[in-house]
Amino acid sequence: MELTKQWRDHFKQLRAFDEAISLLYWDMRTQMPEQSAPLRAETIGYLSTEAFKRQTSESFKALLAEMTETEDLTPIELRSVAVAKTQYERNAKIPSSEYQAYVTLVSEAETAWEKAKDQNDWHMFAPYLEKIIGFQRKFADYFGYESHPYDALLYDYEPGMTVDQLDELFRTLRDELVPLIRQLPEPVQGLDWSMDKAVQQRLCEDWMRVVDYDLTRGRLDATVHPFEITINRRDVRITTKYDETDFRNALFGTMHEAGHATYEQQIDSELDELGLGGGASMGIHESQSLFFENFVGRSEAFLKSVYPRLQSEHPQLQNIDFDTFYAGVNEAKPSLIRIEADELTYSLHIIIRYELEKQLIQGDLSVEDLPAAWNALYKEYLGVDVPSDAKGVLQDVHWAGGSFGYFPSYALGLIYAAQLTESLKNEHPDFESLVSTGTFGPIKQWLEDNVHRHGKALTPNELIKQVTGEDISVRPLIRYLTNKYKTN
Amino acid sequence: MELTKQWRDHFKQLRAFDEAISLLYWDMRTQMPEQSAPLRAETIGYLSTEAFKRQTSESFKALLAEMTETEDLTPIELRSVAVAKTQYERNAKIPSSEYQAYVTLVSEAETAWEKAKDQNDWHMFAPYLEKIIGFQRKFADYFGYESHPYDALLYDYEPGMTVDQLDELFRTLRDELVPLIRQLPEPVQGLDWSMDKAVQQRLCEDWMRVVDYDLTRGRLDATVHPFEITINRRDVRITTKYDETDFRNALFGTMHEAGHATYEQQIDSELDELGLGGGASMGIHESQSLFFENFVGRSEAFLKSVYPRLQSEHPQLQNIDFDTFYAGVNEAKPSLIRIEADELTYSLHIIIRYELEKQLIQGDLSVEDLPAAWNALYKEYLGVDVPSDAKGVLQDVHWAGGSFGYFPSYALGLIYAAQLTESLKNEHPDFESLVSTGTFGPIKQWLEDNVHRHGKALTPNELIKQVTGEDISVRPLIRYLTNKYKTN
Repeated sequence: MELTKQWRDHFKQLRAFDEAISLLYWDMRTQMPEQSAPLRAETIGYLSTEAFKRQTSESFKALLAEMTETEDLTPIELRSVAVAKTQYERNAKIPSSEYQAYVTLVSEAETAWEKAKDQNDWHMFAPYLEKIIGFQRKFADYFGYESHPYDALLYDYEPGMTVDQLDELFRTLRDELVPLIRQLPEPVQGLDWSMDKAVQQRLCEDWMRVVDYDLTRGRLDATVHPFEITINRRDVRITTKYDETDFRNALFGTMHEAGHATYEQQIDSELDELGLGGGASMGIHESQSLFFENFVGRSEAFLKSVYPRLQSEHPQLQNIDFDTFYAGVNEAKPSLIRIEADELTYSLHIIIRYELEKQLIQGDLSVEDLPAAWNALYKEYLGVDVPSDAKGVLQDVHWAGGSFGYFPSYALGLIYAAQLTESLKNEHPDFESLVSTGTFGPIKQWLEDNVHRHGKALTPNELIKQVTGEDISVRPLIRYLTNKYKTN
Repeated sequence: MELTKQWRDHFKQLRAFDEAISLLYWDMRTQMPEQSAPLRAETIGYLSTEAFKRQTSESFKALLAEMTETEDLTPIELRSVAVAKTQYERNAKIPSSEYQAYVTLVSEAETAWEKAKDQNDWHMFAPYLEKIIGFQRKFADYFGYESHPYDALLYDYEPGMTVDQLDELFRTLRDELVPLIRQLPEPVQGLDWSMDKAVQQRLCEDWMRVVDYDLTRGRLDATVHPFEITINRRDVRITTKYDETDFRNALFGTMHEAGHATYEQQIDSELDELGLGGGASMGIHESQSLFFENFVGRSEAFLKSVYPRLQSEHPQLQNIDFDTFYAGVNEAKPSLIRIEADELTYSLHIIIRYELEKQLIQGDLSVEDLPAAWNALYKEYLGVDVPSDAKGVLQDVHWAGGSFGYFPSYALGLIYAAQLTESLKNEHPDFESLVSTGTFGPIKQWLEDNVHRHGKALTPNELIKQVTGEDISVRPLIRYLTNKYKTN
């Protein structure tokens, strides 16, 4: 068989495994009868192992070596080989016995974390975190790095990003955000955000139509934790959580997931055969969800256009004027919990985590001192007192899952989203009128051409540079937030 | 690794593939967005090929050889090896190039059949059938047989069954059924069976509760063609079709699929690790669906117990007395279409197909003469004139799909169901009161102990003999039908 055909077949096979595993997972969260759980876990575990074996097998190693030496590859094939080679080498650097021990540890750590959070008992979780950090530090050494071990971990989430860059970006952002937050007005009081689940569901479906999320290639279902999942390029599903006490969660959560899904739907399907079918990075992916959620969903243009329908579906809103509603939806205030934070204060939650995990990986901060360090930074940056570890250092699952280097993506998502939105608006100066008239075709087309279709064929840096003409910069985000939240 | 552990691992891996493939299929029929179809087909095809490779690989061949020579196997392990060996040898006997050509042919034949049926044009399909029969005759030779090539094909559906046995069973059954059908009264006229979909759905869910179908290990969804599918032993799903012009389809169809599902739910889960996890045969499986559909669902005891609720949900029934309703549900009359036939005339539809396909495989009937032979038998056995091939020889997909030897299972299902029901009633003389009070625990327990839990650990013959003390016999079915349908 021709070499490049073998290469493409390898990724077509992985795609088939991915489709099966993703569907097994989606079904588990949305449809599966409860007693199915143990066997389902076994099935997902087995197929994931099979897929991983294919990525690390001797025969793939040989194929990769042959491809690396082939001279007449197309640029996209070259990129495919480069990405696969880096991933293969990373996988190969971890001794499999160590990796096995690590996987077991993480699974135990997640259970321990759940209990520790539940019982607000840091010491139930600390020993696990200690060991996880030990592994992560060793992994960083195996992977190799130039100036900071944390750089080696960032690759899994944001290829090419470094501590030096992040330090610079986050310092600037923090210095601008802190004073902006200090001058916020008191939030609007006494608004009632409760709404029946059925009405929320209708409104979510309605908003999906407005933003032209393609339901012939997707679905919307309800789950406890909302997510987007790609079954295949033409089957990208999202879920949302209907909270009857506050409908903003479901509506803006759905917009968020629809942003992720639209990205996935618009990636050039040929890239699947080259292992380049996912998003460019976690940060770029997050930029697309945040674009839909914040830059469209929470914008005045969008909200004004959908408010009459919202009012007619939900009588409680009929006596609320639009400005009050808009202020309520865009309420910003320092808070304790990351996932409940608004777009203004959100980045500070991330910067705190970034600073802490960087020090943990470097060895500059011990697990023992972590809760105090956490609480000090929350006080310093957000001005809030952390009343308990459950609402502080124990709130996120990421560290229990070994995801060191993941958190920065969330803030990078906001930074990228602001940069991309400025470029989009430069090319479509009528952006707001497109949004307010529900004319999403040109917006989706711009995103497809400039961001989505490239998949992993461009690195995050290449993508941002190609679209905006500049490197990554916090200035557009600061302009956006200042413009929206500065009161005088 | 210990040999028997390797053996069990092989089947655990196959089970994982089965779960993935079944879920991909179920999702395709119930949830999948339309544009997903081509990639989904590719994924199912790829994973099915992977699973098949594992069953026919050199390493499995070696494992099988070792297991065959091992002396200290338990009885259930011995049975596992015997079943796997027969299946492996059957697979190995077909040259893979021929099998490949056959798979392609069948896929084209199904498309041709669909068009031919649609356009009532036998000649569009005949050349494909000609070729399929050619393959089937060759396959029978490869598999090997003692007295009749059709015996070799029956194995896939009813292991151990032979033409000699079937000839005897079906001749007796036909001779008893034909006069019974001749004396039927005129069907009740003018009953209106229409019902809203939502009401049908509520009633189906209600009936599932009455017969104690375990929804913590299953689901009920709507599809165009109803089916039961095992995702895993604790996740057995059924579907039904809500026909708003006739609610009997959904209600009794749901009972039918719930019968299949209850069987699957009650198979000893350890058998999955030994490749013995399916039903004993298609016929035994069908006996369980027909037990729920006919021997319970269409019984006076069951219908009387659910009729008040049916009437309260559906005002149209309020002026219909129970006897009229019961007669309407159990209406029997000769007809053209197998899948619409009642329990009395159904077997004759099957016997006609059996006689024809036996002759086709033997070479005693040509494809050219098939429609005329079909029409003659419908006239002879059922007294009906076939107005068109679309409503005659073209009505079923089975032959287009190459399923020669499948049809007899449907009639065997009725025969087995009647035998098993007699045994069940012997042990539970209060059967009717259990049914009428919705006390399904003892009935499900009896089925589990005597039929379900054994999976493929017993052959159909062994199972029937063990439960009833007799070989397969049509007498119980004839007693049941005579008792129910003889008018004087």
